[in-house]
Amino acid sequence: MASNSLGQLFRVTTFGESHGPGIGAVIDGCPAGLPISQEVIQRDLNRRRPGQSALTSPRQEPDQVRILSGVFEGRTTGSPLALFIANEDVRSSDYDHLQGAFRPSHADFTYEIKYGLRDHRGGGRASARATAALVAAGAVAKQLLATYELRIAAFVTQVGSEAVILPLATESPRLEEWIAVAESNPVRCPDVEAASRMMAVIEQAHDAGDTVGGIITCVIDPCPAGLGEPLFGKLQADLAHAMLCINAVHGFEYGSGFTGAAMHGSQHNDLFVSEEGSIRTATNYSGGIQGGITNGMPVYFRVAFKPVATLMQQQQSVNQQGEVIELKGQGRHDPCVLPRAVPIVEAAAAIVMADHLLRSRTARL
Amino acid sequence: MASNSLGQLFRVTTFGESHGPGIGAVIDGCPAGLPISQEVIQRDLNRRRPGQSALTSPRQEPDQVRILSGVFEGRTTGSPLALFIANEDVRSSDYDHLQGAFRPSHADFTYEIKYGLRDHRGGGRASARATAALVAAGAVAKQLLATYELRIAAFVTQVGSEAVILPLATESPRLEEWIAVAESNPVRCPDVEAASRMMAVIEQAHDAGDTVGGIITCVIDPCPAGLGEPLFGKLQADLAHAMLCINAVHGFEYGSGFTGAAMHGSQHNDLFVSEEGSIRTATNYSGGIQGGITNGMPVYFRVAFKPVATLMQQQQSVNQQGEVIELKGQGRHDPCVLPRAVPIVEAAAAIVMADHLLRSRTARL
Amino acid sequence: MASNSLGQLFRVTTFGESHGPGIGAVIDGCPAGLPISQEVIQRDLNRRRPGQSALTSPRQEPDQVRILSGVFEGRTTGSPLALFIANEDVRSSDYDHLQGAFRPSHADFTYEIKYGLRDHRGGGRASARATAALVAAGAVAKQLLATYELRIAAFVTQVGSEAVILPLATESPRLEEWIAVAESNPVRCPDVEAASRMMAVIEQAHDAGDTVGGIITCVIDPCPAGLGEPLFGKLQADLAHAMLCINAVHGFEYGSGFTGAAMHGSQHNDLFVSEEGSIRTATNYSGGIQGGITNGMPVYFRVAFKPVATLMQQQQSVNQQGEVIELKGQGRHDPCVLPRAVPIVEAAAAIVMADHLLRSRTARL
Amino acid sequence: MASNSLGQLFRVTTFGESHGPGIGAVIDGCPAGLPISQEVIQRDLNRRRPGQSALTSPRQEPDQVRILSGVFEGRTTGSPLALFIANEDVRSSDYDHLQGAFRPSHADFTYEIKYGLRDHRGGGRASARATAALVAAGAVAKQLLATYELRIAAFVTQVGSEAVILPLATESPRLEEWIAVAESNPVRCPDVEAASRMMAVIEQAHDAGDTVGGIITCVIDPCPAGLGEPLFGKLQADLAHAMLCINAVHGFEYGSGFTGAAMHGSQHNDLFVSEEGSIRTATNYSGGIQGGITNGMPVYFRVAFKPVATLMQQQQSVNQQGEVIELKGQGRHDPCVLPRAVPIVEAAAAIVMADHLLRSRTARL
Repeated sequence: MASNSLGQLFRVTTFGESHGPGIGAVIDGCPAGLPISQEVIQRDLNRRRPGQSALTSPRQEPDQVRILSGVFEGRTTGSPLALFIANEDVRSSDYDHLQGAFRPSHADFTYEIKYGLRDHRGGGRASARATAALVAAGAVAKQLLATYELRIAAFVTQVGSEAVILPLATESPRLEEWIAVAESNPVRCPDVEAASRMMAVIEQAHDAGDTVGGIITCVIDPCPAGLGEPLFGKLQADLAHAMLCINAVHGFEYGSGFTGAAMHGSQHNDLFVSEEGSIRTATNYSGGIQGGITNGMPVYFRVAFKPVATLMQQQQSVNQQGEVIELKGQGRHDPCVLPRAVPIVEAAAAIVMADHLLRSRTARL
Repeated sequence: MASNSLGQLFRVTTFGESHGPGIGAVIDGCPAGLPISQEVIQRDLNRRRPGQSALTSPRQEPDQVRILSGVFEGRTTGSPLALFIANEDVRSSDYDHLQGAFRPSHADFTYEIKYGLRDHRGGGRASARATAALVAAGAVAKQLLATYELRIAAFVTQVGSEAVILPLATESPRLEEWIAVAESNPVRCPDVEAASRMMAVIEQAHDAGDTVGGIITCVIDPCPAGLGEPLFGKLQADLAHAMLCINAVHGFEYGSGFTGAAMHGSQHNDLFVSEEGSIRTATNYSGGIQGGITNGMPVYFRVAFKPVATLMQQQQSVNQQGEVIELKGQGRHDPCVLPRAVPIVEAAAAIVMADHLLRSRTARL
Repeated sequence: MASNSLGQLFRVTTFGESHGPGIGAVIDGCPAGLPISQEVIQRDLNRRRPGQSALTSPRQEPDQVRILSGVFEGRTTGSPLALFIANEDVRSSDYDHLQGAFRPSHADFTYEIKYGLRDHRGGGRASARATAALVAAGAVAKQLLATYELRIAAFVTQVGSEAVILPLATESPRLEEWIAVAESNPVRCPDVEAASRMMAVIEQAHDAGDTVGGIITCVIDPCPAGLGEPLFGKLQADLAHAMLCINAVHGFEYGSGFTGAAMHGSQHNDLFVSEEGSIRTATNYSGGIQGGITNGMPVYFRVAFKPVATLMQQQQSVNQQGEVIELKGQGRHDPCVLPRAVPIVEAAAAIVMADHLLRSRTARL
Repeated sequence: MASNSLGQLFRVTTFGESHGPGIGAVIDGCPAGLPISQEVIQRDLNRRRPGQSALTSPRQEPDQVRILSGVFEGRTTGSPLALFIANEDVRSSDYDHLQGAFRPSHADFTYEIKYGLRDHRGGGRASARATAALVAAGAVAKQLLATYELRIAAFVTQVGSEAVILPLATESPRLEEWIAVAESNPVRCPDVEAASRMMAVIEQAHDAGDTVGGIITCVIDPCPAGLGEPLFGKLQADLAHAMLCINAVHGFEYGSGFTGAAMHGSQHNDLFVSEEGSIRTATNYSGGIQGGITNGMPVYFRVAFKPVATLMQQQQSVNQQGEVIELKGQGRHDPCVLPRAVPIVEAAAAIVMADHLLRSRTARL
């Protein structure tokens, strides 16, 4: 059933748990002849890695990726790429007190119900550590996308109730500028001032032993027209699926999103205009996708993350015996996952886009 | 690649266009021995059908479903069920003026780009008519769900800026009551007063030749624990995918959704409580899903619909030659799709849940 | 799980039973822009149809195919093609005496065990009637293959113990000639004299109320190089799978096949030779496939059919109660399915080849 | 497209090349709670390993398997199992002379055509070394099968023209006895005398710098009834597919196979008999499968292997430039792969059976 695979033609299968030997990904379907840079993969892993800044978990994982197969003399061969990242800074004893406990808003209870047993150490497979495999695979996808004219960038645009608005329905994205700003502040926010307000929110949460949620906005620009399938392979549906597979994500909207629900058609319709021989739309409430297929305008979407469930304060819960217990986070945890989630959102989007680029090769005679 | 299939074990493949001979669905994987009532399928098709009320398109489609295979003496045999609905009230001439035109915020342009040709009549495959096949298949899924203890109900909770709040994070759903109210007003809103305000919004839009968007809230209650897969088969991800496959849907959120992004962990965490020997959560910001798997609490999510793109007012656009043209909707269209979309949302959810119920059979030794 | 689907990118899903309303196929993934001739589909259905000659079942099925979707103005649109063939000459009463009986070497017993109920009329889904849907879909695949330089032809090369040898390992196929001969005798044998000996074998079996098996040889020539995938998508594996899905097939071999098992490497190796700038092999024991991928030489394989299980003579069996019963075939049955199976083998091969042609589009950057 | 995956619910994805860091497999869908013994996996790897006896390649690979994920405290957790086997005794320089050469009846030419580049060292992905990953995954499948009442055993029944007949159509298999004999001679033949004749054939081939093919017979007994799907998931089709995915396999037949093609229905039909309350068949020409589904009788099939293509004698070939070259095998190669292929056939069969056991869980309400 491939519950651990993402994509159809560019197909990523991940494996691994938080406190096992390591985590990895197998990519089946990557076209042959693609130059692969291990450094590019490592760069994204470093962006996701804990311990990057004061805002993130101090767990020290070098997250050194190893390519086990599929690359020969620096190029893909058409055989599956296997990527492996060893787990190193594992302190399973941090989790001993959790063996029989159901932590609130974690997957402990549901895994126990579903499987009848679970690897409780660090959350096992449910740990956000599994997203490192996604990021590694996404970095391969990005290298494939780079051979097309397609660029993906994500930004933190809300932390708690501090938000910045990117006017994507009515203006062209200024990706270069946003990337430059976002990658130079620890929140990865494309607006310097908002970034410092968000930092304050995260520090406040951290000091209170609390956590806070937020929103990531992802933009794909330029994005070729014609990607996506009309029915159950609508591009927005595959993007939504990929985003909702990321730990802590509770919502997805593209284009006008939930705001569009309150609009009238006469405001919302994106009128076509003919410009220097090519057709574009005057506005972009459609988020670059119409009928499930890209129209050549920038694609953009927003992803809502709930606050991290592990608190550094006392919480009441129950254990497997149904007894009331008191819990308090130990181990090393982020007060806010948003900054580290930026490369994860990009990776998931990159895999979806790589998949649809390959799928689009069979659309016509 | 199965771009027209939904589900893995309960697998629905649809076909058909707005102005062809008809539309249909093949369901592969429905377990043998399930009693199938054609009337139950017809009832949901009638809820989706145009011409039900003053609020919907006057196109008269009897939408009579025919079961072509897979049922013998009233029960499924384990062979694929094929369902077919003939198109009857087809006025292709209504679309003659659109042959070379790209209607704003429709799929005309993207289909042309992707396929190099298109069936322009009634939008072809991109028409919302294709959702009738989904509704028929969903009604089979509902009959399967009925053999488990699982109930799905959807409601219109926003039209334009008129909204009703269902307090699902903190209170138990009152499904019986909500269904009774919703199915007795043409908007399918679970609150009588909100319904009449929403009706006014729709009528206003209609009178202005305009259209309006809205939000549907869907609740699954009771819902067994243990459904969903940890990684790329997270239940919320499959629900999001299915919802974003519905025409005009621009957003999906479950549990706390986008609101949760502004919350702190200490507010958002759903504390486990032990109650009469069983474990439940005190609140339900998780929307009944933790780590991708249901926890036995009600599952709920919200789906945002953009306003219908076809307006009964003049709009500017371009044609295939890139020339500026004026367009005005002809044919028969809804000012607001929300009321008719309720059974579509339920159907898509039912297919996802049926799929995961079957998938859950292989989780354990 | 898609147990009723064949192919990944060119994906055929079939439905229907022997005595239901009809049978059909949905093709998902056929590229847009392909001219479709209903006559070409009909021609292959006619080659499979019962009642063609004295050698086949007298059941009279016009097998008129109807295209329900996916074609607009004579070309594929990229939307799924649905094909439907109504059942007409249904005499379900012929099967009344079989309701609780398990016919020897049929699927009655295994369906009952697996599903707990079954449509006993004409064998239900297990009937060879389901192959008409395969033939219709295969005829679409053939039209796709015609746009590449690829031709498929199958022949009856054994009936009972009467066999004809096609020297495909050491000589070039003479397809034109073989097709001309085969399509002008009722056995579809490429050798006139062997054909008349085979006819005698079939008539003898028929007169004895008995049935007889045989072998079909299928040749793909010309066949482009580079089709097939190295591991679990080996071309020969997908061909074997497709062939073993055909009713009554008990064996598959390609190239040297079972004979090759007795050979030495020094005889069996196909030496490469350079000829007018292109590389070919001096012999073709590899059957045109090396490492799962075509090498540009003719592909050929042989398919073994067991004798038809329905005899027009008394046989002993048991019923659902485990009681001993006497059975004798009623209804209308072939003494030998081989002649009618020729278009079925071609169709199954065409679907596999169409699938791999599309798959090959993503092999390289 | 999952060209490197086998199975749908019990899904094995393999990766790795002959001379890269190693090879591995990811198993997605193995039910939780299954006790896993690393020793059992190792035992089958040892049966496949080169260097076991005088009959096999002297390459010394310890083939030590490492479980990277999915097992906690000795049991599967429901998360993917990743298995890895490092390559150790790699002598890539043995292949330097082959860099631009197309070895006869190898995949060099077809990989070059398909991918435009290739890892020539040891055949890269096309190497039979990849089957070690299959064997490891198959050993997990066997541990799952052991929890059902199902046993798989394979035997060498032909080498060159030396053959032994197992009378499976008319007698009950004597698995215990056959296994005992086969596992105690280096050919893995269930008949001691035939084994010594086969050994002579292999030694003769070896001395001549030649190679020889053969046949493996595989038996599944006991095998539960009800496994397999009626149409494109027929058990024999999935078995055929899996077998034809094994390097050097050129043919598959089950039950009466190619011999059945020459039989009459009156001989071939397996009459049902009622025996001590249960229904079985008097003969077993059906090979335990009817209509694609097991009937509870032993399943058996035969797999034909061509002779190994690498000869220790001079052969003529061409290189990438189309120039004529002389080649002679270097490196370490088997004169006959059959003995080492026994666990490979078992593994591939075990994966198919595990998959269908899981699939059978959703057949009925």
